[in-house]
Amino acid sequence: MTRYRLDLAYDGSGFHGYARQPDLRTVQGVLEEALEQIIGPVTTETAGRTDAGVHARHQVASFDGAQPIDCGKLVRSLTRLLGPEVVVYRCQPVGPEFSARFSATHRTYRYRIVNRPFPDPLRRSTAWHVKDPLDVDAMHEAVQHFVGEWDFASFCRKNEGRTTVRTVLAASWCARPDDVLRFEVQGLAFCHQMVRSLTAFSVDVGLGKLEPSAAKSALDARDRSVTSGVAPPHGLVLWEVGY
Amino acid sequence: MTRYRLDLAYDGSGFHGYARQPDLRTVQGVLEEALEQIIGPVTTETAGRTDAGVHARHQVASFDGAQPIDCGKLVRSLTRLLGPEVVVYRCQPVGPEFSARFSATHRTYRYRIVNRPFPDPLRRSTAWHVKDPLDVDAMHEAVQHFVGEWDFASFCRKNEGRTTVRTVLAASWCARPDDVLRFEVQGLAFCHQMVRSLTAFSVDVGLGKLEPSAAKSALDARDRSVTSGVAPPHGLVLWEVGY
Repeated sequence: MTRYRLDLAYDGSGFHGYARQPDLRTVQGVLEEALEQIIGPVTTETAGRTDAGVHARHQVASFDGAQPIDCGKLVRSLTRLLGPEVVVYRCQPVGPEFSARFSATHRTYRYRIVNRPFPDPLRRSTAWHVKDPLDVDAMHEAVQHFVGEWDFASFCRKNEGRTTVRTVLAASWCARPDDVLRFEVQGLAFCHQMVRSLTAFSVDVGLGKLEPSAAKSALDARDRSVTSGVAPPHGLVLWEVGY
Repeated sequence: MTRYRLDLAYDGSGFHGYARQPDLRTVQGVLEEALEQIIGPVTTETAGRTDAGVHARHQVASFDGAQPIDCGKLVRSLTRLLGPEVVVYRCQPVGPEFSARFSATHRTYRYRIVNRPFPDPLRRSTAWHVKDPLDVDAMHEAVQHFVGEWDFASFCRKNEGRTTVRTVLAASWCARPDDVLRFEVQGLAFCHQMVRSLTAFSVDVGLGKLEPSAAKSALDARDRSVTSGVAPPHGLVLWEVGY
């Protein structure tokens, strides 16, 4: 028995999220089906269970192989079976203590907004279109309040009994020259819908509906109902997983 | 009778090119059908007749309206009818001498290549994936030979009797930090398949199959058969039309 690590990227548009679900097309589902065709049935662990429509530039999965695997051959076979939506670009044997989920020390997400009066047809599946002008400096100021270890209950989908304390290592909004605003947030881990909730909150600040300091009061409230919902999934990319 | 100018962008993936063709879905086809629903039958002129699969960030069309048109209302109606693949983002009345095609003084195209061993699922419809490492400096050097007024017969699809003399104002290849190489070329006008031919030629230089100076000899040959085909359409974007 040897454990293997796979590094992959995907376009989440055509999937009901990462995690396997009965009768729905998911990234984990197609990955495990492809692995089964090549090496027999396996169950994979993963670094980040992204929601329906969310993309990944860097996702990590791990599994145990009953027999030793030729990693180069496996990557070529997966490329053939998975097609252009899901690209497994690296395979390597790892120690038995490695877990794609629990060994990950941090995750980085990026969220992109096209901010101008009209949408961009070439970014319609990878960025959220917000018509009204956004104050990116105010958005950047707001998200500084999220850096540190906090109870993010106001920004997590309710899940009774589970902790909503998370550590955010860095957060920034920047404006690119092409009408794109980009949010980058790095944390040890994130709760469900957290990055999209932080994005929706940032947009309310950018529109002038909230002051940047409202981020502090929203955290203090520890109540999901005080915040303003979630940004659409298609602007979000799991950018990098660190080990 | 008033003439109008429309500025638009589109994702060319689902179209058999810009120019109207019987029984095929084209950008001009869906645009004229939408205009017909709103203001009655019109024929449009255009700045750049892009090929199947080629995108536009900035394309221009013009037409004559029998009745005066409320431009703001027209843009809203077109947005509703055309959906997210084609975005008409500006409409303005212009003088009777204006022609989207003949008044255009220059056109800028961009071509993008993802240059790394594995493809990028999120750029699979907007960039060409080239696995082997490309020498972007050599590519940049090569395309400097194309700047100026030359007979581009070696880089144009054969079309007996038509001139293949064109003027290129600027050409550059640059490497972006994210494994993307970008070709930007500006010219008064381009012949059919010219930008994709220049791109394919550049890639042969980048792979070391040709010296940069081969660009000069290819131009001198004035023979389509001396060059190396065309790059795939999906990496190409009509970036800007100038008047």
